[in-house]
Amino acid sequence: MDNHSIKVNYCSTGKVKPKSDELEFGRIFTDHMFIMDYSDSLGWHDARIIPYQPLLIDPSAMVFHYGQSVFEGLKAYHTPEGDAQLFRPKKNLERINRSNDRLCIPELDEEFALHAIKQLVGIDKDWIPKADGTSLYIRPFIISTEAYLGVAPSRHYQFIVILSPVGAYYKEGINPVKIAVENKYVRTVAGGTGEAKTGGNYAASLKAQELVANSGYAQVLWLDGVEREYIEEVGSMNVFFKINGEIVTPALNGSILKGVTRDSVIELLKHWDIPVVERKISMQELYDAHENGSLEEAFGAGTAAVISPIGQLTWNGDHIIINNAETGSVSKKLYDTLTGIQYGKQEDPFGWIEKVKAVSKVK
Amino acid sequence: MDNHSIKVNYCSTGKVKPKSDELEFGRIFTDHMFIMDYSDSLGWHDARIIPYQPLLIDPSAMVFHYGQSVFEGLKAYHTPEGDAQLFRPKKNLERINRSNDRLCIPELDEEFALHAIKQLVGIDKDWIPKADGTSLYIRPFIISTEAYLGVAPSRHYQFIVILSPVGAYYKEGINPVKIAVENKYVRTVAGGTGEAKTGGNYAASLKAQELVANSGYAQVLWLDGVEREYIEEVGSMNVFFKINGEIVTPALNGSILKGVTRDSVIELLKHWDIPVVERKISMQELYDAHENGSLEEAFGAGTAAVISPIGQLTWNGDHIIINNAETGSVSKKLYDTLTGIQYGKQEDPFGWIEKVKAVSKVK
Repeated sequence: MDNHSIKVNYCSTGKVKPKSDELEFGRIFTDHMFIMDYSDSLGWHDARIIPYQPLLIDPSAMVFHYGQSVFEGLKAYHTPEGDAQLFRPKKNLERINRSNDRLCIPELDEEFALHAIKQLVGIDKDWIPKADGTSLYIRPFIISTEAYLGVAPSRHYQFIVILSPVGAYYKEGINPVKIAVENKYVRTVAGGTGEAKTGGNYAASLKAQELVANSGYAQVLWLDGVEREYIEEVGSMNVFFKINGEIVTPALNGSILKGVTRDSVIELLKHWDIPVVERKISMQELYDAHENGSLEEAFGAGTAAVISPIGQLTWNGDHIIINNAETGSVSKKLYDTLTGIQYGKQEDPFGWIEKVKAVSKVK
Repeated sequence: MDNHSIKVNYCSTGKVKPKSDELEFGRIFTDHMFIMDYSDSLGWHDARIIPYQPLLIDPSAMVFHYGQSVFEGLKAYHTPEGDAQLFRPKKNLERINRSNDRLCIPELDEEFALHAIKQLVGIDKDWIPKADGTSLYIRPFIISTEAYLGVAPSRHYQFIVILSPVGAYYKEGINPVKIAVENKYVRTVAGGTGEAKTGGNYAASLKAQELVANSGYAQVLWLDGVEREYIEEVGSMNVFFKINGEIVTPALNGSILKGVTRDSVIELLKHWDIPVVERKISMQELYDAHENGSLEEAFGAGTAAVISPIGQLTWNGDHIIINNAETGSVSKKLYDTLTGIQYGKQEDPFGWIEKVKAVSKVK
């Protein structure tokens, strides 16, 4: 396959775009989608951009039965100069290939996949919303489509990219949330699929999230599946704590997702000479730090919210109030800098930004 | 909804049925399928039997991204009298509802679901193959279909039943297999989704299976995700050992699937006054039993193979040969009795069999 040949079939009339203040997350999709097929005889082939449309899939396709799927999430941002840009997209494509390896899904050509994403975003560039805090969410994913009920890696796949204009995560400024520490359910365990971005991890998380949502908590904090003691992630974000002036985040251990925002936070902290360490941290240690006054801040880090300050952690009935339930200074500085770079309002000394060219629709 | 109203749309011309000796597992599907929709406003509705056909699903449907799905597997058997019958189907429907609860999927009406399965099998009764050891595999499953990328339980689902004529599992009689004990990967862990029949558990298992298949092993034996010491399942079957005349199977602990065949094996053993116990059993204990000569038999139990004798277990490089790699007498008796009841060649003192009436196609 010529690495850069993508057939394009434009939709005849575009859909009406939503108003910026009506945007939610992940409910509205743009005019086009990217799709590419895999078969064991042809490899990845037939890359094409087509009007956004339903998929026609056999009911015996493996994705419906054995969950062999992976996905990614990143965003395109509109800059004050009218440019469209992506934030560290190569990191997402490196990760989808690590997920592919764990799930026995054939490797993607990362360079070609990035080209495909850029071309799709370029075609639907007018869909990137312009209001503060809004963006175009990009969802690349791979599903197993072989019509076969045997438990074995599929021999057919589709790699698909869809785009969704999304509203500001914080409508009224960055805002601390309440989190419940989960003692009964686990998200995953070392030796499982926790390091991969695959559906099963999210399916496993729904029950715990649903139970705490009824009590007013935004997310759960996941503990490790072995000792039920060490902190792993919060909801679908990585988590950081400021203890005695040092930033601590759980070390990658095989069951924690290697977040792109997590990595960016660590790089920024190092750049600022703020001490940061990746290590095991237990809930007891965190509780003790709270008790002796050394727990100064806590925040989640992920693509959706960028930085999500944690104002309260509830553990075994104890309510741990962090930084008077206010946004801490490190959280604020990270949020402002990351969004500043993402939206092109601030210099990018790290080479994290990839520009996207508009594609003119020559039919 | 009238509990027994299923609209039927027959296909105009049936497909050509495969010959018995050409049958594999799960590659060919019958003429019809059952489908029913769920929305939070209407509940389960629009139950219908239609010609087997691809599903038309939005690419943002949650099943493709967050793995919110459950499934079941059971079989219809052709008896010497020409009847069609099912083996303990209510057990599968009880389990799909337990899986639903764990995955935040709305409950099914079990009685109605059984009625739907019987009507579908009745319509495609001619598809039940007649040769020894063949059967019609029934795959009920539920997928989340809401077009939404938020990580939350879907508000729309489809419950679907498809049918596949399958060949004899043992072409040349029941046959012991080689199994590798898995030390690196785990299937799931307590607090996870191991007790539910959901895609993520199977997706997580592919990598380990693929690695050992290359070395000639049929399946892996899964150890617990916490201590990596206690035996959980073998491949996608439950597992039993005969030690010193007593049958031991791992106790249900939250991460082991509660198999219908497992339950039937335990009931049969009790009926025969053969001692059977459900408890924790470690690989070390099994190894020691092998060393001191008290490990007499080992076998997997599941819908596909019914009983699968284990002739060899490989653990940390040690090859444990069980019963001279021959099928043991308890394995053989269980296999003969279970298949005897399933195929209607033997009395069913337990009330395990449900007859299926042929449905005449009145168009």
